[in-house]
Amino acid sequence: MSKGVTILGSTGSIGRQTLDVIEAAPERFHVVALAALRNVEALATQAQRFRPQLAAICDPSLASQLEARLAGTEVRVAAGEAGLREAATLAEGQVVVGAISGMAGLGPVLAAIQGGKRLALANKEPLVAAGGILMSEAARYGAEIIPVDSEHSALFQCLLGHRREDVRRLILTASGGALRDLSLEELKGVTPERALAHPTWQMGPKVTVDSATLMNKGLEVIEAHWLFGVPVERIEVVLHRESIVHSLVEFVDGATLAQLSQPDMRLPIQYALGFPERVPTRWGPLEITEVGELTFGSVDLARYPCLRLAYEAARRGGTAPAAMNAANEVAVSAFLGGEIGFTDIPRIIEAVLDSHRPAPVESLAVVAAADAEARQTAHKLPR
Amino acid sequence: MSKGVTILGSTGSIGRQTLDVIEAAPERFHVVALAALRNVEALATQAQRFRPQLAAICDPSLASQLEARLAGTEVRVAAGEAGLREAATLAEGQVVVGAISGMAGLGPVLAAIQGGKRLALANKEPLVAAGGILMSEAARYGAEIIPVDSEHSALFQCLLGHRREDVRRLILTASGGALRDLSLEELKGVTPERALAHPTWQMGPKVTVDSATLMNKGLEVIEAHWLFGVPVERIEVVLHRESIVHSLVEFVDGATLAQLSQPDMRLPIQYALGFPERVPTRWGPLEITEVGELTFGSVDLARYPCLRLAYEAARRGGTAPAAMNAANEVAVSAFLGGEIGFTDIPRIIEAVLDSHRPAPVESLAVVAAADAEARQTAHKLPR
Repeated sequence: MSKGVTILGSTGSIGRQTLDVIEAAPERFHVVALAALRNVEALATQAQRFRPQLAAICDPSLASQLEARLAGTEVRVAAGEAGLREAATLAEGQVVVGAISGMAGLGPVLAAIQGGKRLALANKEPLVAAGGILMSEAARYGAEIIPVDSEHSALFQCLLGHRREDVRRLILTASGGALRDLSLEELKGVTPERALAHPTWQMGPKVTVDSATLMNKGLEVIEAHWLFGVPVERIEVVLHRESIVHSLVEFVDGATLAQLSQPDMRLPIQYALGFPERVPTRWGPLEITEVGELTFGSVDLARYPCLRLAYEAARRGGTAPAAMNAANEVAVSAFLGGEIGFTDIPRIIEAVLDSHRPAPVESLAVVAAADAEARQTAHKLPR
Repeated sequence: MSKGVTILGSTGSIGRQTLDVIEAAPERFHVVALAALRNVEALATQAQRFRPQLAAICDPSLASQLEARLAGTEVRVAAGEAGLREAATLAEGQVVVGAISGMAGLGPVLAAIQGGKRLALANKEPLVAAGGILMSEAARYGAEIIPVDSEHSALFQCLLGHRREDVRRLILTASGGALRDLSLEELKGVTPERALAHPTWQMGPKVTVDSATLMNKGLEVIEAHWLFGVPVERIEVVLHRESIVHSLVEFVDGATLAQLSQPDMRLPIQYALGFPERVPTRWGPLEITEVGELTFGSVDLARYPCLRLAYEAARRGGTAPAAMNAANEVAVSAFLGGEIGFTDIPRIIEAVLDSHRPAPVESLAVVAAADAEARQTAHKLPR
């Protein structure tokens, strides 16, 4: 039977690739709802093509434009945060893809969890900032969270069928990002265009910059901690330039399992939609002899201060990861806007983290306050 | 609670390493019975140290010598094939390690299966020659077969928790053996000593030569077919010099799982004894960044004719694998004895295989007849 899929963030990179997956397996999946923050044109085009029950736009000022574009179709329009929550909890949506970028995804993701949905989660930041709340709500409402990040999908696949208490370490792989071959000196003068040229993955701009600073990996370490219940001290990051091994799980007996595939986000997306079944893919199997060589190296934290800061935030705990994440969003946005240099990103995060006093994450309000305060601090810092 | 372990073939390489594993985890495992084909001295020494209930020697002429050596202990002595079968079915033996080399292991392995035991199976040849019978008897008597070969242990671990119908290919890794860097011309003059110097694994002589010819891998392909129910056409072999990735499973969606560890047979032995629990090991975890590089290449069947012959035997089916295996045992033994050259091994196997008319494997008698006939043919061939 075909599964109904709701996509939160359908106009972004993960959202579009999710539609590719659905289009390639129409007998297995169909679109129930599409939601976007602001890109009303792309959303309208998608809705005309996939004819969901509902199209939701977060910015309420764009609702009438969306309605006009979808006039004459049977697609209903919803708007605002309430519109996104409605999309997330639609009865026919058996899988909700959480693919909004940044903290804006928190509300809809939580709504999907509280609706007891299967959540195919690509949106890192809510888990980083409010992982404790999301995981306990998931347990409470019986929501199943299947990660979509290639690293966490890999860990999920490697852990399946094995006893959680036998895990010694989770090992996340990092390509090193677009700037991995530049000297520390050269990093200072890097332009946004240069930082966006990722060697192995096609992703959105925020994630691509995070991948160049390795903040991406820092967020993933914290995400893995919440998803799999492994302490951050037992989650490591190794450099793996080829982006073929997506992560590894080491067990207490010295055995390690690794998951490999072509670096194509459609594969983990499809896995999360289809689980526990695997969908035969036309995107090409991996020929290990054609890959020929896989390399692994240690991460130099002096070169990647953002990764160090993420571990530090996790160590401080409470709202510190939320503050760090907010500072990173501000800094990356300023870098992409040409306001600051590439090496200013960790400078801003560190200053915010040092001025933040972590509080226990007792409610989303606490997280939101830490997030807002950190953004304010980040904006006030000298550029 | 400590598990009782019976070791069939305790004086060989796998047997001795099994005793290492048991000695390192005395709170988890204890020895119930030890059995050997002929090495009565080593068996007696082991029995004095581990004090099993039973020590069994296959060669009945050595029974009195074993009794003399164990006089004054509470270790009971048994002899002959019946003695080995008694060891294999002892009530207190919760795990039976099948570690006899070659077809001599078939009877005791079958006895363990018909006793409904958990069989930790290292002994390839019985499965190659009589896999259909062993697997159907295992199903009938509720015996659990956990492979001990590093490759099959890897496949077992990668398959656990995943749907068997989602498997596209099994990919076995091969180090290429002791002679992998010699030219085809140089192979002709190889001595047994040279062939026994394996670059990454410590194993018995028969297995080490099989590993240099890749017959080892051919036997493993057939073994994997029986253990995991995957057709031989979907089982591949790739060269992997580092012996860190022990095998891979590719799924229909393009994802591949791999199992990695130090090349130390104690790890898969321990896994098979402890399953489903993993025993924390002192033999060192794998530091992937210290390994640094993993390489994978295609196998040149012109260089490794024995692998081609194994696939050919599997394709012919019936008793052909049994005949091929018997011919290989004779040829390897002749090579180790200095009677034939290294490149004569595939010549003998091919001649035997070509003269063999495969019959359906309806009984062990059919297998035994094919085995005996093949040995006779192999012995008669010009050296």
